[in-house]
Amino acid sequence: MSEKIAIIGSGSWGTALAQVLADNNHDVLVWGRNMSEVVDIRDYHKNTLYFNDLILNENIKASINIESIKGYDYILLAVPTAAVESICEELNYVLDAPVTIINVAKGFHPTTHQLLSDVIKTTVEAKYLKAVVSLIGPSHAENVVLRQHTAVNSVSDNEQAAKDVQFMFSNDYFRVYRTTDVIGAQIGVAIKNIIAVASGIAEGLNLGDNARAALITRGLAEMSRFGVSHGGLPETFIGLCGVGDLVVTASSFHSRNFQAGLQIGEEDSAKRFLETNTKTVEGIHAAKVVHELSIEENISMPITEQVYKIVYENKKPSLAIEELMMRDLKQESI
Amino acid sequence: MSEKIAIIGSGSWGTALAQVLADNNHDVLVWGRNMSEVVDIRDYHKNTLYFNDLILNENIKASINIESIKGYDYILLAVPTAAVESICEELNYVLDAPVTIINVAKGFHPTTHQLLSDVIKTTVEAKYLKAVVSLIGPSHAENVVLRQHTAVNSVSDNEQAAKDVQFMFSNDYFRVYRTTDVIGAQIGVAIKNIIAVASGIAEGLNLGDNARAALITRGLAEMSRFGVSHGGLPETFIGLCGVGDLVVTASSFHSRNFQAGLQIGEEDSAKRFLETNTKTVEGIHAAKVVHELSIEENISMPITEQVYKIVYENKKPSLAIEELMMRDLKQESI
Repeated sequence: MSEKIAIIGSGSWGTALAQVLADNNHDVLVWGRNMSEVVDIRDYHKNTLYFNDLILNENIKASINIESIKGYDYILLAVPTAAVESICEELNYVLDAPVTIINVAKGFHPTTHQLLSDVIKTTVEAKYLKAVVSLIGPSHAENVVLRQHTAVNSVSDNEQAAKDVQFMFSNDYFRVYRTTDVIGAQIGVAIKNIIAVASGIAEGLNLGDNARAALITRGLAEMSRFGVSHGGLPETFIGLCGVGDLVVTASSFHSRNFQAGLQIGEEDSAKRFLETNTKTVEGIHAAKVVHELSIEENISMPITEQVYKIVYENKKPSLAIEELMMRDLKQESI
Repeated sequence: MSEKIAIIGSGSWGTALAQVLADNNHDVLVWGRNMSEVVDIRDYHKNTLYFNDLILNENIKASINIESIKGYDYILLAVPTAAVESICEELNYVLDAPVTIINVAKGFHPTTHQLLSDVIKTTVEAKYLKAVVSLIGPSHAENVVLRQHTAVNSVSDNEQAAKDVQFMFSNDYFRVYRTTDVIGAQIGVAIKNIIAVASGIAEGLNLGDNARAALITRGLAEMSRFGVSHGGLPETFIGLCGVGDLVVTASSFHSRNFQAGLQIGEEDSAKRFLETNTKTVEGIHAAKVVHELSIEENISMPITEQVYKIVYENKKPSLAIEELMMRDLKQESI
């Protein structure tokens, strides 16, 4: 059955997911603010900024007019975490019928610390909202747009909505599993960005594969501890939204979080990175939220703490990592 | 306190661990069968075959005379899985007093399917055996010999022995945790070699980072399922001997298992690899043992099954991976 999905955001992930949906013969419209990107997609079937000369599915429509999303049953938000709230406010002016919102951003509200599904639910008026589904997991846009095998989770407290999204996206290269652990899954994918920054720092400091494996392992423990303490299910963290997304982000040069850490590690300082960076690095923002919450709630988050200190207190990365590695010997425990 | 440790095996891992012990001021002797390797270590403080011109700690002793290990309190076995039993038989002729045996091999007995700690216990005569400890986790010799940060587990049903080994090895670059989950830890590090072969195959087939993350995630689930069914603790699989060792092996070009898979994937056939390979690839052996056990015990091990079929039944890797990725949509579950 063909569905109508409007994608908010013409970046790499929005474009790649638009192609998955178009490949599945759905009616898909990409909305973006950037005229040249929209024209690129609409008229030339390309997104040159992210994917060079790759030709996209020709059935992807694109528009810069936000009114065009009227009449679409699903709205997919492919925007940075920090933009989710303002986009939702905008939707209240545009929508005239209830929709299912699919969110693919990974993070927390910067000041209220809410999960993004809660940001959406508290911002979009109830009369416009059928359900909220997160589509999250280990997925670089660069792989998906090449139709390389990918597996992600459809996550919602509304099981039918999760199932609808699962079937809408699934095809022979894009596999969608589903879970109702809204808390665990969203916390997993948000915290993995912090660990990916740390992993990049370790790589930049040239610490080797063993150190990275130790960091990822302790990072998974830290993520689980935080997630379970917030009501997530332990098994979620050994699934696609836990270890899966952690592995793909913390060891891939495609990842912006890893790349940010890499530069910070190579320069053994976050200073220049912070002065010159123009991209959204979700792990940098998440580190602040999670560090603040971990102090309020007294949860031990040593990797997050060191990333926070490196980025926000100008701590020397080599010193921070040294301290992480020198923690007391003890029985291995999460 | 200085301890006396004899290391059986002058390969890369034996040499790297000898250096950790020498760095900690223990009395360490490496025994090897290969005269040139032994002379290289003893007289030139090098292991050229593995580490080129790197100069090792000068206090590492080396010998080709097996009688030299007499009087050592700890015997560390740094030999391939398939050699553990025969070395233990040899020890019965050489030893004249009880020792603690430290095993660093990762695998199962090829025919009895026993864990290596059980192979040691059933082969070395009780009068010569104080305790058996496994020292296992995410650790490439190439990193350790450069004194790069590494974290592993000391694993034994004898807690004091595990603790002794933990403190003997620990220093500022080599961190040792400990656990008494002998079953879970040994199963984790053995099965991860199978997943690493699969991960190499995926890389060789150029499937991308998302597919590798999915494979590692499902591999961790498969490893946990098998391990828990054999009496291992679930938490072990999210620790250093589970996800930690899996990550370092399944995404590193240092790993022989990954390299083997890479060749098999690139050629889309295991044939030439099997005809020409001369190295010990533990994952290839473990795939046979685990596949046989999984059938006997009716445990679903889809990745292991496909690796088995690729290697032992000449199944086409691209077809096998395709089948893995095309399994039914369902709720994510381990």
